[in-house]
Amino acid sequence: MKIIQEGKAKIYVPEVREIVSSDMPVFYNPKMRVNRDLAVLGLGYLCKKLGRELMVADPLSASGIRAIRFIKETSCVGKVFTNDINEKAVEIIRENFRLNEVPEDRYEVHREDANFFMRKGWGFGFDYVDLDPFGTPVPFIESVALSMKRGGILSLTATDTAPISGTYPKTCIRRYGARPLRNEFKHEVGIRILIKKVIELSAQHDIAMVPIFAYSHLHYFKLFFVKDRGAKLTNSLIDQVGYLLYCFNCMNREAVFDPLKIKEHCPICGTRFSLGGPMWLGKLWDEEFTDFLYREAQERGEISKETKRILSLIWQESKLQTVGFYMLSKLAEKVGIPQQPPIKKAVEFYEGVRTHFEGDGFRTRFSHEEVLRKSEELKVIIERRLKGGAG
Amino acid sequence: MKIIQEGKAKIYVPEVREIVSSDMPVFYNPKMRVNRDLAVLGLGYLCKKLGRELMVADPLSASGIRAIRFIKETSCVGKVFTNDINEKAVEIIRENFRLNEVPEDRYEVHREDANFFMRKGWGFGFDYVDLDPFGTPVPFIESVALSMKRGGILSLTATDTAPISGTYPKTCIRRYGARPLRNEFKHEVGIRILIKKVIELSAQHDIAMVPIFAYSHLHYFKLFFVKDRGAKLTNSLIDQVGYLLYCFNCMNREAVFDPLKIKEHCPICGTRFSLGGPMWLGKLWDEEFTDFLYREAQERGEISKETKRILSLIWQESKLQTVGFYMLSKLAEKVGIPQQPPIKKAVEFYEGVRTHFEGDGFRTRFSHEEVLRKSEELKVIIERRLKGGAG
Repeated sequence: MKIIQEGKAKIYVPEVREIVSSDMPVFYNPKMRVNRDLAVLGLGYLCKKLGRELMVADPLSASGIRAIRFIKETSCVGKVFTNDINEKAVEIIRENFRLNEVPEDRYEVHREDANFFMRKGWGFGFDYVDLDPFGTPVPFIESVALSMKRGGILSLTATDTAPISGTYPKTCIRRYGARPLRNEFKHEVGIRILIKKVIELSAQHDIAMVPIFAYSHLHYFKLFFVKDRGAKLTNSLIDQVGYLLYCFNCMNREAVFDPLKIKEHCPICGTRFSLGGPMWLGKLWDEEFTDFLYREAQERGEISKETKRILSLIWQESKLQTVGFYMLSKLAEKVGIPQQPPIKKAVEFYEGVRTHFEGDGFRTRFSHEEVLRKSEELKVIIERRLKGGAG
Repeated sequence: MKIIQEGKAKIYVPEVREIVSSDMPVFYNPKMRVNRDLAVLGLGYLCKKLGRELMVADPLSASGIRAIRFIKETSCVGKVFTNDINEKAVEIIRENFRLNEVPEDRYEVHREDANFFMRKGWGFGFDYVDLDPFGTPVPFIESVALSMKRGGILSLTATDTAPISGTYPKTCIRRYGARPLRNEFKHEVGIRILIKKVIELSAQHDIAMVPIFAYSHLHYFKLFFVKDRGAKLTNSLIDQVGYLLYCFNCMNREAVFDPLKIKEHCPICGTRFSLGGPMWLGKLWDEEFTDFLYREAQERGEISKETKRILSLIWQESKLQTVGFYMLSKLAEKVGIPQQPPIKKAVEFYEGVRTHFEGDGFRTRFSHEEVLRKSEELKVIIERRLKGGAG
């Protein structure tokens, strides 16, 4: 065992050579640092918003690091409820609480199936739940939604990004009831499909899970939702679920809410559309929440530089919330731009904002036809500049 | 308490005047006789098919009548596992088992939340589950599917027929993720939406719930599914889910599997289509299963006459499995037939079969255009006959 420090928590983790069995869980994954930073910041938001002691759940705790960071890095945790079905994990969670000198009345450690853990008659609702399963979160969504208090926040991780981003479309259809799109903004489509699924499973119980933040990384998606209740509010979420028509020839994209309005062919180039969805077509970021995360992160020493960088990017991105974005490299390829300008210049040219989803991705207010026209313009400008440079 | 006999079981039921509290469950509903007859017959099919002792679950037992009938009226029940969260129900179930002299090693009585009951580590899968919840079965579907053995049969009841048949479309969308259609075959649409939901929730776990029987009654839907597993088979079910376009002007209906093929307007009369679904567009009845139920019912004294009558009707209906059907009264109104012929004559005229969904409903192999043409023909015939009668 060695001791690792992350944020204000230190934890015991088994050293790699100790991990002999495949059913031994990954207790601590350093690649998930940003994810945990975000989870801490999200809880910080709720502390400020509710201004009272909160009941926090970590139903798949593994090492317990999150729960410990929640207690050490925020000021409002009444009690944190940790859980893991793995016996070894439960031992390590207990040891880690002691290592961090967390008073015993501030935490509980359970060893149950996560769904059982969430659904048992607590007699109160959790204010904040951090759910970070190995693989898809789908089997836990209903239990989580039911276990939460109205006004609470769900901090959700999904690591099955490949199927919902188009690598395994059949798996996506089975698991999420939606078709992915393997295009330049496939990860955004994946996140929108995941949001749809969370909304759909909660709506069965007239629970409205309102998405307030989304972050995509190569290996995982990180989302936040606020729990609310009632038929009307749930309907208003479902009204923002629809299809996305995408043209793999000219990159045209059209959001469609009413299935009767689905068109078979792209009106710009006549190619047969591809169809993604149903998916969430509403906003990915709540401005107030995103603003808090961004500002709070900059002020905190225990938050990693990487998290600060990402939040700065997302903060900008949240100012222009389009469905889908463009990749400069794809546009350049499409219209034959001989040399790509730096992304910052391109963003200015298209009057848009960068997106955290792709290094050379940007969002723009322009219609697709305008984007194509502007791209032709850009081509001429660059060709002229290159000739001038050569002459 | 009084004793009631149904099939080969007798049970204690509280008399009406004893039921003082609204949270006291309806222990015995005589209107569900047909439903229970079908459940017994379905189990009989599985007995014959598997030829071994079966593990049977009745997760929402109420009086225990089903469980007792299963034991007394079939020959293959190894053990029946009953459950009810209500303390009074659990008492009555025990008394009813004793009253029917069921040996103690043939049954268990549990008192748990039905989802907990189904998901606990039984170490075996149930061969037959009868799920008859008060209201929607949606919150139990995943647990049921997970609790069953491959090749097992689910006997499912839904009493929330109003929302899924179009009376409360918003509720249907929230609870089932599909739009209902309030047309002449709205109950068939409701059943197809319910099947879609069962398939969808099971598909999340690569479980294929194959529909094999459907019965609609004013207050409930009764369905049977066979549980199978695997991505391929699950995909093949999802491939049979789609939309139904319906024209409220000319009654035209078109099943659409590929959303890109959705049309906004009816090609026959130009009216804007209404859209129902996504829903199951495949077969509602497995011929072998339906045939067994029909034949077995006729031979059994303990099966009610009503059940025999319904099974005879459904047996005929299963020979021509169209998506949607026609109602003679609606067609007569549409084309102005002055007097309706008897339904038997009409069925002959349209070369179809009757449907159990509506008294004057029938299915036909004809295309919608042919149905309209034939209806005009029928009008002329009847007008001529009426004139002849008058002259």
